[in-house]
Amino acid sequence: MALMKSWVESANSPETDFPLNNLPYGVYDLGDERLFCGAAIGDYIVNLTRLEEEQILDLGGPQLFGWGTFSPVIEAGDVAWDRLRLWLQKTLAQGSPVEETVKRYLDPRAEARMHMPFDVAEYTDFYAGKHHATNVGTMFRGAENALPPNWLSIPIGYNGRASSVVVSGTDVVRPNGQLKGPDDALPHFGPCARWDIELEMGAIVGKPSDSMVSVAEADEMIFGYVLLNDWSARDIQAWEYQPLGPFQAKATATSISPWIVTRAALEPFRTSTPERERPLLPYLKEPGPMHYDIALEVALAPEGKPETVITRTNYKELYYSAAQQLAHHTTSGCPMTVGDLLGSGTISGEAKDSRGSLLELSWGGKEPLTLDSGETRSFLEDGDTVTLRGAAIGDGYKIGFGDCVGKVLPAQPIPDWAKE
Amino acid sequence: MALMKSWVESANSPETDFPLNNLPYGVYDLGDERLFCGAAIGDYIVNLTRLEEEQILDLGGPQLFGWGTFSPVIEAGDVAWDRLRLWLQKTLAQGSPVEETVKRYLDPRAEARMHMPFDVAEYTDFYAGKHHATNVGTMFRGAENALPPNWLSIPIGYNGRASSVVVSGTDVVRPNGQLKGPDDALPHFGPCARWDIELEMGAIVGKPSDSMVSVAEADEMIFGYVLLNDWSARDIQAWEYQPLGPFQAKATATSISPWIVTRAALEPFRTSTPERERPLLPYLKEPGPMHYDIALEVALAPEGKPETVITRTNYKELYYSAAQQLAHHTTSGCPMTVGDLLGSGTISGEAKDSRGSLLELSWGGKEPLTLDSGETRSFLEDGDTVTLRGAAIGDGYKIGFGDCVGKVLPAQPIPDWAKE
Repeated sequence: MALMKSWVESANSPETDFPLNNLPYGVYDLGDERLFCGAAIGDYIVNLTRLEEEQILDLGGPQLFGWGTFSPVIEAGDVAWDRLRLWLQKTLAQGSPVEETVKRYLDPRAEARMHMPFDVAEYTDFYAGKHHATNVGTMFRGAENALPPNWLSIPIGYNGRASSVVVSGTDVVRPNGQLKGPDDALPHFGPCARWDIELEMGAIVGKPSDSMVSVAEADEMIFGYVLLNDWSARDIQAWEYQPLGPFQAKATATSISPWIVTRAALEPFRTSTPERERPLLPYLKEPGPMHYDIALEVALAPEGKPETVITRTNYKELYYSAAQQLAHHTTSGCPMTVGDLLGSGTISGEAKDSRGSLLELSWGGKEPLTLDSGETRSFLEDGDTVTLRGAAIGDGYKIGFGDCVGKVLPAQPIPDWAKE
Repeated sequence: MALMKSWVESANSPETDFPLNNLPYGVYDLGDERLFCGAAIGDYIVNLTRLEEEQILDLGGPQLFGWGTFSPVIEAGDVAWDRLRLWLQKTLAQGSPVEETVKRYLDPRAEARMHMPFDVAEYTDFYAGKHHATNVGTMFRGAENALPPNWLSIPIGYNGRASSVVVSGTDVVRPNGQLKGPDDALPHFGPCARWDIELEMGAIVGKPSDSMVSVAEADEMIFGYVLLNDWSARDIQAWEYQPLGPFQAKATATSISPWIVTRAALEPFRTSTPERERPLLPYLKEPGPMHYDIALEVALAPEGKPETVITRTNYKELYYSAAQQLAHHTTSGCPMTVGDLLGSGTISGEAKDSRGSLLELSWGGKEPLTLDSGETRSFLEDGDTVTLRGAAIGDGYKIGFGDCVGKVLPAQPIPDWAKE
């Protein structure tokens, strides 16, 4: 597929994340309290809330864009999703007869402050990166037990904390927690010293289910995708995670990109998951390409210093697609809800410089990274800003997500009643 | 404290779960679609929705009881909680001048069908029973590794699935899932063969937090308690749970009692957690008795047969209180939300007949139970009805929760596309 040309000139640049082919959805304000729903196009945002108010946009149902969240749009179902996308593509295309009218509803993206684009119902985080699972397993359990016996059969996942999901631009406070070094007899309470990132994608469930669905059905349930940074406290995790998995190590914050890229926009970039190393059970088999080719990178900037790109990888490195994960999620009869967010698991490539976490990049702190500024990093320092970027690369255009940014603030002081 | 006498005669019986001292909250209908909020009193329910409509009950704020859920009441905060309880206790007390008026708003409890009493925001399940953790650990990992090293320092918990929480009376369909016996080379997909219960209590968070709270503050955040049955698929769990904890094994259903017993009603039954075997970090220390003395039992009835009580234990057996669990939950900065539900973990006593799961009662199926009907059980059979009961026992009265009931239905047939 080629670039679809828009009368919004900046949308025709091969550099923009937001050509007419993309049209991702986000929620923003323009300096006051009022929240708008919009679609990004080049350097602008089409203000859907005001277009609906003025009855220029009408999808033929109840009010969808006046709620400060895309959740009502997602709940409206796939007929509404398709209508909205089609309306936007016609309206913003070169030669559109309504250019002069709609031009008045473009807000400059640079002036927008972004908010959570949807209400997260529940948040599940998967562990679908084979290189990541192997790397972490090797560090935590030794090379022989790196990949758990179930890993090649099950898209392993655990429930995360929906209340901790924040939009890009939200500062992230280093957590406190129980810590116990390998030589300590007892744990102590203090600030996390191994504060880390996880480069992931998030899939947003757009249709509910109350019984088991196939991989093909699961794929159709997904409304869209975001970039996702699953901030992780490695030292808290190491002490707490046996036997029931990560809990407080992953509950501080999970950042998502401000823009939801729809499944429709990613359609031309479908690809298959990697070759199976063990046959999958039939319920997990993919009827066609269910995964996506999306280039990803992470940049780290110390306070007041320029950024260094610390990893470059691709979504397609994951062993299980979001559709496979969602199908597995429903096997027990677990009810899925509109707004459920599925984290993909950390995306690491095979090469060292394609690993999706500092834990892996610095090999547990044993091989610190050297940044362009000359500083070194094993884990995050206070003041560090982390930026995730991602885009599916088309022919003369790209489908981007916008930056997913978070700055690390120092831990809260330990209250007196918690001091030893 | 002694029995508080009510003009509702059935509330003065030492046998009722619902004397004037209790006044638990529930949501019900009377055979049509309309949902009412009510407080149980003896054999009746005080219809708060209609009392508010008729302006007989007015707590001095927005409408609270017309939403088919107690969530707005919980969100209204502790001043409203106290006002409501005081109003009910005055109104329903013997000698109340409004008896004749309020009598018209009593609905017979036997005619009420119960619904979810509140909207579950997120669901966390803990693992705070030392006998349970030791029993399960011994079976899964051997006696030497039974209790994980962190267990005496951390109230271990994991995030569960809020969408799967159902009210007592809801049938529970046996899940399908990935299963792999110890001698199987590869897993297969089929119905769970080790379907189990977990006897727990649930604490409902009534106030939000966005930073670390003390145990005393956590205690004040709790609105009330329910009985909770955390249905568990032991065979699915055994294969899936490493390294990130239980997922589909616990996602089918979690049943709660229809009545929320308030913290205020349980106040006279406060007790301390058991003696510490290892000193706790200061942030987890209890400033006073934060736990409760609540007698619990589980009954099992095969289809068409009378029930057998299979275990009797007490909430106070748990090593960590709900307040300690909630305080720990906030350490990482994890935002807590009104409506969060905290499962206590399975409550097992030391004696064999006080164990809170069939896994423990039948020792992993090696020692099947014999029921009064002569049948034996290692795990649940289709058609079995499980009933949890609980009550704090006062002087001539008790504070009960109402039965928490669930019947096991057969697994859904495996769809053709999932067959091997």
